[in-house]
Amino acid sequence: MSVRSHSKAYECWLTYAPLEDVNLVKQYQEKFKIVLIKGDGPVMESVREELKAGLKGILGIEAVITTDNNQDATVLVMKTDQEPVKSLLTDDEIRKLAGEGFLLKTTVYEDKEVIIVTAKSERGIFYGTFRLLKQLRMGKDLSHLYHLSNPSSPMRMINQWDNLDGSIERGYAGNSIFYKNNELTENLERIKDYARLLASVGLNSVVINNVNVHQEETRLITDRLDMVKTIADIFRKYGIVTFLSINFASPVELGGLDTADPLNEDVKKWWKDIVANIYAEIPDFGGFLVKADSEHRPGPFTYNRDHADGANMLAEALEPYGGILIWRAFVYNCLQDWRDTKTDRARAAYDTFMPLDGRFKDNVIIQIKNGPMDFQVREPVSPLFGGLKKTNQILELQITQEYTGQQKHLCYLIPQWKEVLEFDTYAKGKGSTVSKIISGSVFPQKYYGFAAVSNIGNDENWTGHTLAQANLYGYGRLAWDPELSAEEITDEWVRLTFGNDPEIIKTISRILLKSWETYEKYTSPLGIGWMVNPNHHYGPNVDGYEYSPWGTYHRADHHGIGVDRTVKFGTGYAGLYYPENAEKYESLEKCPEELLLFFHRVPYTYRLKSGKTLIQHIYDTHFEGVEEVEEMIRDWQRLKGKIDEEAYLHVMERFNIQLEHAKEWRDVINSYFYRKSGIPDELNRKIY
Amino acid sequence: MSVRSHSKAYECWLTYAPLEDVNLVKQYQEKFKIVLIKGDGPVMESVREELKAGLKGILGIEAVITTDNNQDATVLVMKTDQEPVKSLLTDDEIRKLAGEGFLLKTTVYEDKEVIIVTAKSERGIFYGTFRLLKQLRMGKDLSHLYHLSNPSSPMRMINQWDNLDGSIERGYAGNSIFYKNNELTENLERIKDYARLLASVGLNSVVINNVNVHQEETRLITDRLDMVKTIADIFRKYGIVTFLSINFASPVELGGLDTADPLNEDVKKWWKDIVANIYAEIPDFGGFLVKADSEHRPGPFTYNRDHADGANMLAEALEPYGGILIWRAFVYNCLQDWRDTKTDRARAAYDTFMPLDGRFKDNVIIQIKNGPMDFQVREPVSPLFGGLKKTNQILELQITQEYTGQQKHLCYLIPQWKEVLEFDTYAKGKGSTVSKIISGSVFPQKYYGFAAVSNIGNDENWTGHTLAQANLYGYGRLAWDPELSAEEITDEWVRLTFGNDPEIIKTISRILLKSWETYEKYTSPLGIGWMVNPNHHYGPNVDGYEYSPWGTYHRADHHGIGVDRTVKFGTGYAGLYYPENAEKYESLEKCPEELLLFFHRVPYTYRLKSGKTLIQHIYDTHFEGVEEVEEMIRDWQRLKGKIDEEAYLHVMERFNIQLEHAKEWRDVINSYFYRKSGIPDELNRKIY
Repeated sequence: MSVRSHSKAYECWLTYAPLEDVNLVKQYQEKFKIVLIKGDGPVMESVREELKAGLKGILGIEAVITTDNNQDATVLVMKTDQEPVKSLLTDDEIRKLAGEGFLLKTTVYEDKEVIIVTAKSERGIFYGTFRLLKQLRMGKDLSHLYHLSNPSSPMRMINQWDNLDGSIERGYAGNSIFYKNNELTENLERIKDYARLLASVGLNSVVINNVNVHQEETRLITDRLDMVKTIADIFRKYGIVTFLSINFASPVELGGLDTADPLNEDVKKWWKDIVANIYAEIPDFGGFLVKADSEHRPGPFTYNRDHADGANMLAEALEPYGGILIWRAFVYNCLQDWRDTKTDRARAAYDTFMPLDGRFKDNVIIQIKNGPMDFQVREPVSPLFGGLKKTNQILELQITQEYTGQQKHLCYLIPQWKEVLEFDTYAKGKGSTVSKIISGSVFPQKYYGFAAVSNIGNDENWTGHTLAQANLYGYGRLAWDPELSAEEITDEWVRLTFGNDPEIIKTISRILLKSWETYEKYTSPLGIGWMVNPNHHYGPNVDGYEYSPWGTYHRADHHGIGVDRTVKFGTGYAGLYYPENAEKYESLEKCPEELLLFFHRVPYTYRLKSGKTLIQHIYDTHFEGVEEVEEMIRDWQRLKGKIDEEAYLHVMERFNIQLEHAKEWRDVINSYFYRKSGIPDELNRKIY
Repeated sequence: MSVRSHSKAYECWLTYAPLEDVNLVKQYQEKFKIVLIKGDGPVMESVREELKAGLKGILGIEAVITTDNNQDATVLVMKTDQEPVKSLLTDDEIRKLAGEGFLLKTTVYEDKEVIIVTAKSERGIFYGTFRLLKQLRMGKDLSHLYHLSNPSSPMRMINQWDNLDGSIERGYAGNSIFYKNNELTENLERIKDYARLLASVGLNSVVINNVNVHQEETRLITDRLDMVKTIADIFRKYGIVTFLSINFASPVELGGLDTADPLNEDVKKWWKDIVANIYAEIPDFGGFLVKADSEHRPGPFTYNRDHADGANMLAEALEPYGGILIWRAFVYNCLQDWRDTKTDRARAAYDTFMPLDGRFKDNVIIQIKNGPMDFQVREPVSPLFGGLKKTNQILELQITQEYTGQQKHLCYLIPQWKEVLEFDTYAKGKGSTVSKIISGSVFPQKYYGFAAVSNIGNDENWTGHTLAQANLYGYGRLAWDPELSAEEITDEWVRLTFGNDPEIIKTISRILLKSWETYEKYTSPLGIGWMVNPNHHYGPNVDGYEYSPWGTYHRADHHGIGVDRTVKFGTGYAGLYYPENAEKYESLEKCPEELLLFFHRVPYTYRLKSGKTLIQHIYDTHFEGVEEVEEMIRDWQRLKGKIDEEAYLHVMERFNIQLEHAKEWRDVINSYFYRKSGIPDELNRKIY
C-alpha cells in the first residue's frame, strides 16, 4: 500500500506500528494466521488490502488471505448471510445489526477459537475490519471479543471546502489534495489514503467542493463532471458516497436561462436534466449541498421564494435516483448596521427556518451549525435543534480550526462537541439531547446525523498540526457513536498514533483534553466570541467586528460588556429555547457562566460565582491561559525521546508559536479591557 | 487632437471651452490671428498643436500658425535669442529668465501691439504657451500682459505607483493608463494627454512605476526597457523626463549575483552596465527612485551598509550620463511590538538620515514625505526639513487620497500643502520655511523641489472624483511657485474647469477650500492620525492599528489619549526640531491644538483653548464634520443647471457616498470614545 513509503505523520492513526507487547504479538500471530474473506468487488478488495497491511504492520506476519472455505481459518470475514459465519450467529445478533453496523466476536468453529468479522453490508465489514485492527493495535484482549456496533445515524459526512484552484477556504494544512490549477490532482493515491482515513472511523459521505461555489466549481455538475467521477470512483472503494456543493444560480450561469427561480418550469427542467446526466455517469452519486442566500451567495430570496421552495425544487430532481438535497441553515443578514441593536444574527437561522418546518420534501436535510453564530470557541446550541420537529436535520461541526487557532494553536474539539451533543433541548421532555435528535430518536426523520468541515490539506501530516489529527479522528468516532466519552476517544487516538505506553497516553491525553479550555481562557471571554481580525479570523482584534456589518458585536463600553439577548430587555433570543433552557438563559443568576456575555450585558464589577468581579475574571483567565500553554509545553517536553522525534519537534514548534500568540491574545485583551474600564488588575500584573 | 472626442471630465482644466464674454472674444480674435512660432522638433510641434487647439476652442478661430518671419504676426512665440523677439527684450529680462522660465508680454512691434511668448528653452516656451492660453480662457485683460515666471525649483516630479499588471497601489481612479496585463497599454494617446496635463502646470519629470517594485517591474531596467522607451518618447514631447523606480535587489533577482551589497565590485559593475544600456536607449533618461529597507523592500541594511552606501553606488553609475538618484527617506521599523512604547516611528526617518547628512553624492536626492508618519490628514512637518543641511532634498506629497477619503470624499489638499510649505523650520533663523528650503534658498543644493504621488487612473475623468482634479492641478502650480495662495490656485482651477461665472467660482471655491478641514473634523482628531481599517486604509477603525506592528498607536484608554513625544517624558521626538518649534511642541499649552494628540497624552477632561473639554471637542467636531458635508451638498445643489450636468450628477453621487461615510466615521469615533471614557455628550446627541 502506498502509505508504507510515507512518514508516520502521514499515516495518522493508521500507522499499524508493531505492537509493543511481544507476548501478545506471539499469541496474536497464531490467531491471525489464516484469514478467510468472502466476497469480491472494490470494497472487499480494500478490506483485503487493509487487513494484509494491518497484520503485517502490527504483528509482523504475512497472513494467508483466502477466499475459499478453509477449515484452518482463524479469522472469518464475510456477510451475515454467508457460511460458515451465518451458522455461527444468533437470530438476535442478526436482528440487532443495522445495515452499516458490524459484529466482531470470538467464538468456536470447527473446535477451535475463531474471530468473526461480519455485517449485513460490505461497508459494514469494512468498518468491522478497521475496528478489529484497531483493537489489535491497542493491545486489547481478543479472547472474549464481542463487539456489536451500529452507527447512530445514516449521515456521517465530511465537507471539503476545497476550490478547484487548489486553495481551501479556511484551510490551515496546505492546499487541496483534490485539485490544483483548476484540474484534478495528479496524486490520486492521496485521495485514496484520505478515503481510508475517513472510512476507518466510519464516515460514509463526502462533499468534495467548497460550499461557496465559485465560477470554476459551478461547472463541476456539467463539463467538469469527469473530475467528480474520478473522485467518486476512489471513494466508492471505501464505502464513501460523493456529494457536490452547487451554485443555486447555475441555471443562469451555466444554462443561459435568465432566471434561477425555483418555481420556474425551465429552471426545474434544467436541474432535472443536469441531475439525470450526473446519475448516468455516477449511479451512486449522493446529492447536493447548498449554501443559499448567505454571505452574498445566490438563493431563492432573489425570486421572492423561500428556502423550502428552493430546496424542494432541487430535491425533486434528485428524488428519482435516491439523491439527497442538503440545505445549510447558515442564513443571516451580513449587511447589518452595527448601530442597529434590535437585529440579532443569533436569531437569523431560527427565524428563517422555523416557519418552514414540515414543508421540506423527505429527501431534504437541513444542515445546522452547532451554534447560532459561527463556530466560535463557545456558543450555546442552536435552538433549531429541538425546534425543528418535522424536518430532516444534521449537525454541522467545524473540524478545521477557523476560530480556534487555525491549527497553529492546539485546540482539541471533542470536549466542545460532547457538550453540544449532551445539551438537553427538552424538546420532548428531559433527555431530548442533541445527540438523540440527530440519532433520529426524538423526532421521526428519514435522514439525520453529522456533517463537519474537514481540517485536512496536502501538508505531509494532513492537518498542519499533527495533534489536530485527533479532531478528525474524534469527529468520525462521535459521528458513529455520539455517546462515546471524550476520554475514550482520546485514549484510542493516542494509542493508535503514539502507542500504548501509559505515560505517553496519560500525558498526551491530558494535553489534548485541556486544550480547548486553555484556548478559551486566553481568547474571547464568557461566550461573547469573535474579537478576531476580520477576513482571516486569526489573532486578537477586540473591535475587529465591532463596527462591521457582520452582526457580531460585544458592545463593550466603560461600564461593561455583553449582548442582552433576554426576552425581557434584549433581542429575545433566549426565548427561542424550550422553557427549561429559556428560563435559565433569561436569568443573569442561572445563566451558565461560560455563556454569560452571550446572553447578558454585565458590568465589569459584577461578581461571578467564584466571587471574582467580571473584569478580574477576564484578567485572571487570560494570565492563566498563557500559563497553561507553558504547562502544556512542559508536559510535552517530558515526552522527548519517548515518541517519534519528528512528531516531537513538529509539535514543539507549533507550541512555541502558540505560546507567543497566546501572549499576544492575553496582552491585547487585557489591555483593551483595562484601557476601557480603567479598573486595575488586583494582582498588579503587567497590562499595557 | 485626441481630446476633442472626449467628455469634458476627460479634458480636465484644458477644456478650452469658448470664452463667455463675446466682446472679449472679438477683441482677442484680432490679437491671435497670426501666430509666428519659430523652431521645430517634438516640443515645438506640441506648442503648435496646443496653441491651435486652444485658440480654436476658446476663441473659435483657426489661427494662422506660421514659422517664417511675418510682419503681420500678432503673436510671437520663440526663444529669447531668436529674432524678432530678441530685439524686443531688455537685457534685464533675459538675465531674469531662468532656463525653464518664460516671459509673456504685450509690446509694440512693427507699429502694432503684439504678444510675445519667449523663453530660453523649448520647455520654457511650452510653459509660456500654456500660461497664455490659461490667461485667455480666464478672460484676463491681455493689453498690459507682463508675466515673467521662473519655476522655484528644478525638480517638479510626479510619481506613478502603477504596476505592470495594470493595478495602481493606492489608486482610486481605475487602473493604470500605462500598463495592462504586464504589457504596455494600447492607448498611447492617453499617455500623451496625461503628459499635456502635467506639462500644462509645469511639471517636468515622472517616475513611471510603483516604488514597491515587484517581480515584473524589476525587469523594466532590462528586458522590459522597450516599454520605458516608448513612454519616454511620449513624455519627451512635453518636456517631461522619465525616471524608473528600481528594486535594490536587482543584481540578485535579475543579474544572478549572490549579493546586492552596494560595496561589492560585481554589484557596482552590474549596475553600471545596466545604466549604460538604459542611456544607450534613452539618452535623456532621468534616473532612479529607490524605496529601500522599508516595509519589507530590500536595501543596503541586508549587507550591513547604510543608505549613503546604497544611494551613492547607484548615483555613481548614473553620474556619467547626468542621471539622478532619488532615495526615499520613508524608512522605519514596520515590525514594532505595540507593547514597546519607547520606539517611535515618527523618529525613524530623522534618526536614519541625519547621521548621513553630507555623505551623499551630489547627484543623490533624498525624497522626504511632508510628515514623519505617512500622509495623514494632519501631521507636523518632518524635522528632516531644516535638519538636513548638506543633502539635496525634495518634498514628497501625496495627491492620491490614501488616508484622505480615497477620492470618494472630497478633500482638497492645497490648504494642507500650503501649511507644510509655510512651516518655518528656523533652520537659519526666522523665515527658513519649507518652501524656501525646497526652493534651494536656505541651504546650498544642486537639486531641490517637489515630488508627489499621482491620483490618476484610467477612469474617464482621470481622478475618480472630478473635483480631485483640482489636487493634481494645484500640486503642479505649487511645484512651480510655492508662494501662490490656495485661493489663487483654486480660482484658476475653477475658472478653467467650470468657466468664469462668479457665482460658480465662489461656490466651488468655498466647497474646495473648506473640504480638508471638514474631512479632518469627522475623522481622527487633533493630529493623532490613523484610526483606519488596515490594508486598504478606508473607513473608520479606531483600534485598526492599535495592536499592530506598524508603529502607529493612539494609546487611548479610559482617561485620555495621545502619544507623549516630549523630550521630558516621552519619545523625545519634539526635540528633533529647532528650539523655536521644539519648545512649542514640548509644551502642552503652546502646542498648536491641531497637533495636540500627536505630541501629548491628554486626559479627556482637559480644557482646550475654546473652553471645551477634549472629549466634548471630539464629539462636537464629529457632529460638525457631518453637518459641513450636508452644507457642501446644499452648496453644490445650487449649481444645478449652471454647470455641466454630467459633472453635476457625478459629484453629487460622490457627495452622497461621502455623507454616508462621514456619518459612519462620526458614529464610530464618537461611540468609541463615549464607550471608553464614559463621559456623555453635553448636548445629549445620539451616540451608540
